[in-house]
Amino acid sequence: MQQRPSLRLKPGEERRLRAGHLWVFSNEVDTASTPLRAFAPGEQAVLLDARGKALGSVYVNPNSLICARLVSRDPQVALDRSTLTHRLQIAAALRERLFPEPWYRLIHGEADGLPGLVIDRFGETCVVQPNTAGMEHQVEAVAAALERVVGPRHILVRADSPVREREGLEPWTGWLGGEGPEALEVREGGLAYEVPARDGQKTGWYFDQRANRARLAAYAAGQRVLDAYSYAGGFAVAAAAAGAQEVVAVERSAAACDRIAANAERNGVGDRVAVVEADAGEYLAAARLEGERFDVAVLDPPAFIKRRRDRKAGERGYRSVNEAALRLLGRDGVLLSCSCSAHLAEERLAGILLAAGRHLDRSVRILERGGAPPDHPVHPAIPETDYLKALLVRSVIASSLP
Amino acid sequence: MQQRPSLRLKPGEERRLRAGHLWVFSNEVDTASTPLRAFAPGEQAVLLDARGKALGSVYVNPNSLICARLVSRDPQVALDRSTLTHRLQIAAALRERLFPEPWYRLIHGEADGLPGLVIDRFGETCVVQPNTAGMEHQVEAVAAALERVVGPRHILVRADSPVREREGLEPWTGWLGGEGPEALEVREGGLAYEVPARDGQKTGWYFDQRANRARLAAYAAGQRVLDAYSYAGGFAVAAAAAGAQEVVAVERSAAACDRIAANAERNGVGDRVAVVEADAGEYLAAARLEGERFDVAVLDPPAFIKRRRDRKAGERGYRSVNEAALRLLGRDGVLLSCSCSAHLAEERLAGILLAAGRHLDRSVRILERGGAPPDHPVHPAIPETDYLKALLVRSVIASSLP
Repeated sequence: MQQRPSLRLKPGEERRLRAGHLWVFSNEVDTASTPLRAFAPGEQAVLLDARGKALGSVYVNPNSLICARLVSRDPQVALDRSTLTHRLQIAAALRERLFPEPWYRLIHGEADGLPGLVIDRFGETCVVQPNTAGMEHQVEAVAAALERVVGPRHILVRADSPVREREGLEPWTGWLGGEGPEALEVREGGLAYEVPARDGQKTGWYFDQRANRARLAAYAAGQRVLDAYSYAGGFAVAAAAAGAQEVVAVERSAAACDRIAANAERNGVGDRVAVVEADAGEYLAAARLEGERFDVAVLDPPAFIKRRRDRKAGERGYRSVNEAALRLLGRDGVLLSCSCSAHLAEERLAGILLAAGRHLDRSVRILERGGAPPDHPVHPAIPETDYLKALLVRSVIASSLP
Repeated sequence: MQQRPSLRLKPGEERRLRAGHLWVFSNEVDTASTPLRAFAPGEQAVLLDARGKALGSVYVNPNSLICARLVSRDPQVALDRSTLTHRLQIAAALRERLFPEPWYRLIHGEADGLPGLVIDRFGETCVVQPNTAGMEHQVEAVAAALERVVGPRHILVRADSPVREREGLEPWTGWLGGEGPEALEVREGGLAYEVPARDGQKTGWYFDQRANRARLAAYAAGQRVLDAYSYAGGFAVAAAAAGAQEVVAVERSAAACDRIAANAERNGVGDRVAVVEADAGEYLAAARLEGERFDVAVLDPPAFIKRRRDRKAGERGYRSVNEAALRLLGRDGVLLSCSCSAHLAEERLAGILLAAGRHLDRSVRILERGGAPPDHPVHPAIPETDYLKALLVRSVIASSLP
């Protein structure tokens, strides 16, 4: 193993790491003894506490607020093909136990012991997201480890997440070792979807909403359902397949709308899924004026709060769309309200739904609380890994109900 | 409707109620103008803000810290057979939509608009828990409303919850309108259980753990499973039926152990459920000394924190049993850790599991977060209605894993 430089913390700054966290912030580093600017982005190092005791191995990025991420609590273990292979094996063991078919998130970053790395598995294709400089260096090693543990036919790198900006990384995408297909097949809950490989959102599919799609579908039979941010029609098709009388799926671009319609057709529910090309907010406002009524609605908007400082504006955004969706429900309706903003706590989302309900004189009760499914483990020391909230609420119009 | 007295709040104390809450605390009442001692326990009243504006109708108990509970936001609506019938209809509509068979919580107190009342339905028997003086007055009206909405063959009143002490109520139990059976049948997830009617815990069955039993069962196939607080064998039998290789069910009393064994037999898994008569804490300690190993464990202890002031001792209790259970897991194990203490936030339980894992050098990740199922709605303004937490974690022994 090549010699790695040291990164030394200020006194007391090892405490959060000892409690289980994996991140080092730049203001916690003793830059007098180990200047951050001496590190190349992504360079590996041994992390020391202020007294020189080794805490483990990290990779460093002097350009990021999170200037180092713990790779191992054993300072001897560097991030390399062997470590990647071992971590992939541990992660794959869980997924193979959980899922009958290979469609899932295989690596969920920090929670799977591989900070900054996401891998989604679509049957014989793996989509890799290196989101930090440290992981950008490992792309070839990740591919080699994947070959060994999974043996996928195709590997697509989607190095185009906006979070890479914070690491000073340029966006790129590409197949490793030979071109793969233009579209990825997704199998989920007995249904099949198709999404574009290179230019879908994120890795192409929101595996994190799998359990919530099943959750919503359980309320859909015989109902009129609204899927306001439909993307590839995941919620819409699942609801229709579960027996919804009619589903309205709203998406902004014509290409996305075509995809929803194709996915509905593919599952034999094209006649019950109406696709509307529109901005979700504008659709909600227009539907109110037109007196539209739904029994069940799902809101799965993009993150309205990307950074802590956007919280106030973001909460107003959530309040606005949730109130608009509640307005469209009949006397006894169901709303599945999602937020993928790590900065919006579940209690805040519940508070927004309560306030919107009070404003509309509807009694709102939480029936189910959903998060991401078990292929998206949560690291209990890192609240940021618990980003997805989904509250399924019942809304009843009954002015006397307390 | 008979004339009801007024209960007047101090200035500003209506705010929480307007935001959606249903409780009035005794220090919020303008006792100079409406002395609490003038009310009989359970008496109904019209709630006024400090300026005399009616906020709704309440029932009052001068002996309780929660001295009044909102029954309706319409001051004209008193708590009577008609109101009870209407609320039961709204509650029943949800349950009938959700469940193919009539085994569920029908009324979940505040969240179903009936503060202080719990009704569980066991097929043709309804078990009623009046937990406040206000609801104690309504027992006959509740029975009449139940007749109308559900038409059960038997109604059992279990007025023996310890929470009644805070209301100054004596414990009693009894059948209304003719004796019912000694044992109640429970059907859940394709399985059948039997529990004692008059002297089971709570209403006889923990319907709130239905979804978590299914959750655990999904990890049980082929595994050795520990159910440490087994009560009637709910988790144990579900795990065995899902294909567990062996289940050890621990309970304290001989009678409870007989019941677990009988429930296992009833479902054809008696040969794979071993019942141990022991205190769970003592069992966990002894099992460690004997080198017992499990792949999957569930801890569903009684509430260790009954009142806010017990929090510290209670958290030590949770830490102790969770650490003991983690110790018994092999290299790659699963623990479902439950808490029904309203005063223990989910984040605290997660923190306890993290700390226990760090102490044992195990990497602990949250795979699933479960609460009570949708027949136990949560009132978003009343955190106390969100009492049940269940964290399903994976524990991996791998010292280098960060």
